[in-house]
Amino acid sequence: MEVTSGKNTSCCLNINGPVEKMKRLPRLTWRKIWKVGKEDKRRVIHSLKVGVALSLVSLLYLMEPLFNGIGENAIWAVMTVVVVLEFTAGATLYKGLNRGLGTVLAGLLAFLIAHMAKESGNIFHATFIGTAVFLVGAISTYMRFFPHIKKNYDYGVVIFLLTFNLITVSSYRLDSVLKITHERLYTIAIGCGICLLMTLLVFPIWSGEDLHLSTVAKFDGLAKSIAVCINEYFRDNIQQQENDAENSMEMEDPIYKGYKTVLDSKSSDENLALYASWEPRYLRHCTRYPWHQYVKLGNVLRHFGYTLVALHGCLQTEIKTPQSVRVLFKDPCNRLAGELTKALKELGDSVRNRRKYCPEMLSNHVHEALQDLIDALKSQPRLFLGTNSNTNILLALATLAAKQKSGKDFVVSLSSVNTDSSDDGPPRLGLSQDFLKEGDKKQNTLRPTLSKIGITSLEFCEALPFAAFASLLIEAVARLDLVIEEVVELGKVAHFKEYSHHDDHEFINVVVSDNNPRERNEVPSSQLATD
Amino acid sequence: MEVTSGKNTSCCLNINGPVEKMKRLPRLTWRKIWKVGKEDKRRVIHSLKVGVALSLVSLLYLMEPLFNGIGENAIWAVMTVVVVLEFTAGATLYKGLNRGLGTVLAGLLAFLIAHMAKESGNIFHATFIGTAVFLVGAISTYMRFFPHIKKNYDYGVVIFLLTFNLITVSSYRLDSVLKITHERLYTIAIGCGICLLMTLLVFPIWSGEDLHLSTVAKFDGLAKSIAVCINEYFRDNIQQQENDAENSMEMEDPIYKGYKTVLDSKSSDENLALYASWEPRYLRHCTRYPWHQYVKLGNVLRHFGYTLVALHGCLQTEIKTPQSVRVLFKDPCNRLAGELTKALKELGDSVRNRRKYCPEMLSNHVHEALQDLIDALKSQPRLFLGTNSNTNILLALATLAAKQKSGKDFVVSLSSVNTDSSDDGPPRLGLSQDFLKEGDKKQNTLRPTLSKIGITSLEFCEALPFAAFASLLIEAVARLDLVIEEVVELGKVAHFKEYSHHDDHEFINVVVSDNNPRERNEVPSSQLATD
Repeated sequence: MEVTSGKNTSCCLNINGPVEKMKRLPRLTWRKIWKVGKEDKRRVIHSLKVGVALSLVSLLYLMEPLFNGIGENAIWAVMTVVVVLEFTAGATLYKGLNRGLGTVLAGLLAFLIAHMAKESGNIFHATFIGTAVFLVGAISTYMRFFPHIKKNYDYGVVIFLLTFNLITVSSYRLDSVLKITHERLYTIAIGCGICLLMTLLVFPIWSGEDLHLSTVAKFDGLAKSIAVCINEYFRDNIQQQENDAENSMEMEDPIYKGYKTVLDSKSSDENLALYASWEPRYLRHCTRYPWHQYVKLGNVLRHFGYTLVALHGCLQTEIKTPQSVRVLFKDPCNRLAGELTKALKELGDSVRNRRKYCPEMLSNHVHEALQDLIDALKSQPRLFLGTNSNTNILLALATLAAKQKSGKDFVVSLSSVNTDSSDDGPPRLGLSQDFLKEGDKKQNTLRPTLSKIGITSLEFCEALPFAAFASLLIEAVARLDLVIEEVVELGKVAHFKEYSHHDDHEFINVVVSDNNPRERNEVPSSQLATD
Repeated sequence: MEVTSGKNTSCCLNINGPVEKMKRLPRLTWRKIWKVGKEDKRRVIHSLKVGVALSLVSLLYLMEPLFNGIGENAIWAVMTVVVVLEFTAGATLYKGLNRGLGTVLAGLLAFLIAHMAKESGNIFHATFIGTAVFLVGAISTYMRFFPHIKKNYDYGVVIFLLTFNLITVSSYRLDSVLKITHERLYTIAIGCGICLLMTLLVFPIWSGEDLHLSTVAKFDGLAKSIAVCINEYFRDNIQQQENDAENSMEMEDPIYKGYKTVLDSKSSDENLALYASWEPRYLRHCTRYPWHQYVKLGNVLRHFGYTLVALHGCLQTEIKTPQSVRVLFKDPCNRLAGELTKALKELGDSVRNRRKYCPEMLSNHVHEALQDLIDALKSQPRLFLGTNSNTNILLALATLAAKQKSGKDFVVSLSSVNTDSSDDGPPRLGLSQDFLKEGDKKQNTLRPTLSKIGITSLEFCEALPFAAFASLLIEAVARLDLVIEEVVELGKVAHFKEYSHHDDHEFINVVVSDNNPRERNEVPSSQLATD
């Protein structure tokens, strides 16, 4: 305590510190425990399931008649339950079936080897067993490096090696290799049986369902990101700066939050797809459910996400787009982003409802909006390549000509632009300071006229951020097409139901009433990582 | 065979098909086996190590004196070796220490519970054990969902549960709980001991080293990506189209290859950092080596990678940037990209050599190059906001004025631009077709002059792709600053050696001679996923 107070002048706080901490510890611990369960209630259910399964399997050992039937090796059944019972049905099946397969194969091989070495002398027997253990160990470990085996049968190979060693080594001292093989096989079968019972029949948790919902959540997250991104971009500067200060922590940024889960989803997607491929629930039409298509869709969505990251980067650049440019393109940009959001939401809904997506339905609107934006970009500004002085001359001449013509429509059509630009701090009039200086020398008479006409001219680098923004929006549309392709493909290979008008009404209701679609299908994204 | 020939007209091929396939099968299998080993020779070493360790541990059972000392439970040592011996030292230590810790804790708790239930009647004893198994099972499963435990002690909790059940359930029928606890403890200790011996002393493979090298490889990959990206962008169109056709498979694209490993590195980085944190090798200065800093650096590099993805997207857009624009900015862009590449390579080298990075050394060059690009963007083109007809009028007037002034320098300074633009398919002269029509009505005399002077004017949307490209390059510089920050931080917390002039010479040699730095420090990127 003294050391603390000596170190720090605010000793009063520090004296109370540890005591306060001790008092708060139980509350903090309880809150932590509560939080883990609240994030995903299935965790509590899973924990209880494991407890029940272990108690059940213990009965094999604890109850007299059962124990007499099985014997001491009942303990292997207990071990199997501990190791095999996983959070989702798919993971349990993956482990259980791998364990079964590994045990059977190892039993066969070990039995063969034990039989071969049986008749020989003691020393030869030991050498033979040692060599077999070395060879099988080295070969099966090497096999674990093959990508296909690594992905689908890694646990099986470990169990194969475990059982093989157990039986082969034991066979040196035990006469009845057959008995031990037999016992290990059926105790493991009992253990796996209890696991499958618990996992498939009591509150089953499906990896496939998780993968499905996390894919849907990705669409919603991306849609939300785009919507917020566009809103932020076209808000006026002061508001934006205030908001930037609030959102200085990247973690709290709603845009970041929207695409973050998409970017980091690769490994969890692949795991879920692997486990889901072991689940029997989705064996429809006598074909395996195409979980790999979800992984492919995830890849495309991730690429869409990268564009969003870059778009987000446009919001954070040092060079801000002048208000005048932003106002000019606000409407087409807003419309395009709105269509993108709508398209993503609809894609997400069609996946959510396992309904085929017809690309004609919305994609056209997106392309119309895209065309509008491109038209706006085409019709509005024009870029002059040349050195600075040339463009200045151009400008000067243009204003001169405007004066000469005294073209009413010319002035009027530019006035709105002029007003906009004057909002943006110092009025960004037609000529830069450099020109005014140069202009003084060249044509003194020009100066007074300029401020009246006010042609909005921008340096290219001021238009850069907007150009990047627009270009990335266009890029996003291109990527959306890829997403649509994959969703259509998913609908086809997964035999989603056909689109009907009833669905349409349903969909419209969903879109209108659904402000927070993620809450309806609560996806425990953190859970995905813990499986 | 008949079915095949009936189905397909090219029956000759099909008859030979299966036979050929059978003949080629051994060769294909052998090639596959060879490839797995060639990708990373340490896989072969690891496999042999596992074989040797298993043979060694089998001796406990096979050799008479050892067996007499340990007894039948020697088989647990064999099982420990199978389960604990992993590819890298860190992973083995993680599993071994977790297994040890779990066993000790479970032994203590089980012994306590067995002692409590000892004096009671049979039925109460069984109920007591059943309840304890349920409670401990449920609670420890729930604990596995806590992020901190999940990350660091997941395997330990499983082993805790396994050992606890083994001992508690066995205690019902065995009198000597102490003996079984004791035996399990020291057989597991022997098993773990053999694993640690093999993993730390015989050809050790370090997760920390893998993480270090994969981080270095990321820098090299990103640097290469940028270099190729810029080259592709500023090549002329025909070449580019040919190349696009070749690179239509995204997998073969060198740009994609460069940043791919960076994008997907999150989970492998985190795993490697976790395992590395268990490795004793890097305990310097009595503090733990800051592997988390590598993970943070990986995060920043991944964000840099996202910008590269967007930059790559610029190469693939439908709207190509006109050659005239590209030529104008080729030099500053090339210089900036060159500096970026150089900076990334140097950052990578400083991490590779565990040498502190001094940001003053290169960052300035990058910012100079950035300033050059911004200056070029500022000085060159100018953007006029207004409706189409206004800009047309502007143009017309400008050319008129140019004619009136007959300014020599004006024409000359624009001529180079004009030449460039004429390379690019149809010559992109000053006026669009619309204007020529309009111009006819307004000022017939203008027409002949225009083609001679040729002011290069572009629609804004034609300049978009370049603007996006330039903007993303600028964005990349901003992200590079974040990367530099993290590298400097890494040098500080990891106590890298100070930068010296000797290193500088060494560095220059490396940069000059090193065309393919990845080959020198071969990083088995695929391996990272398999650990």
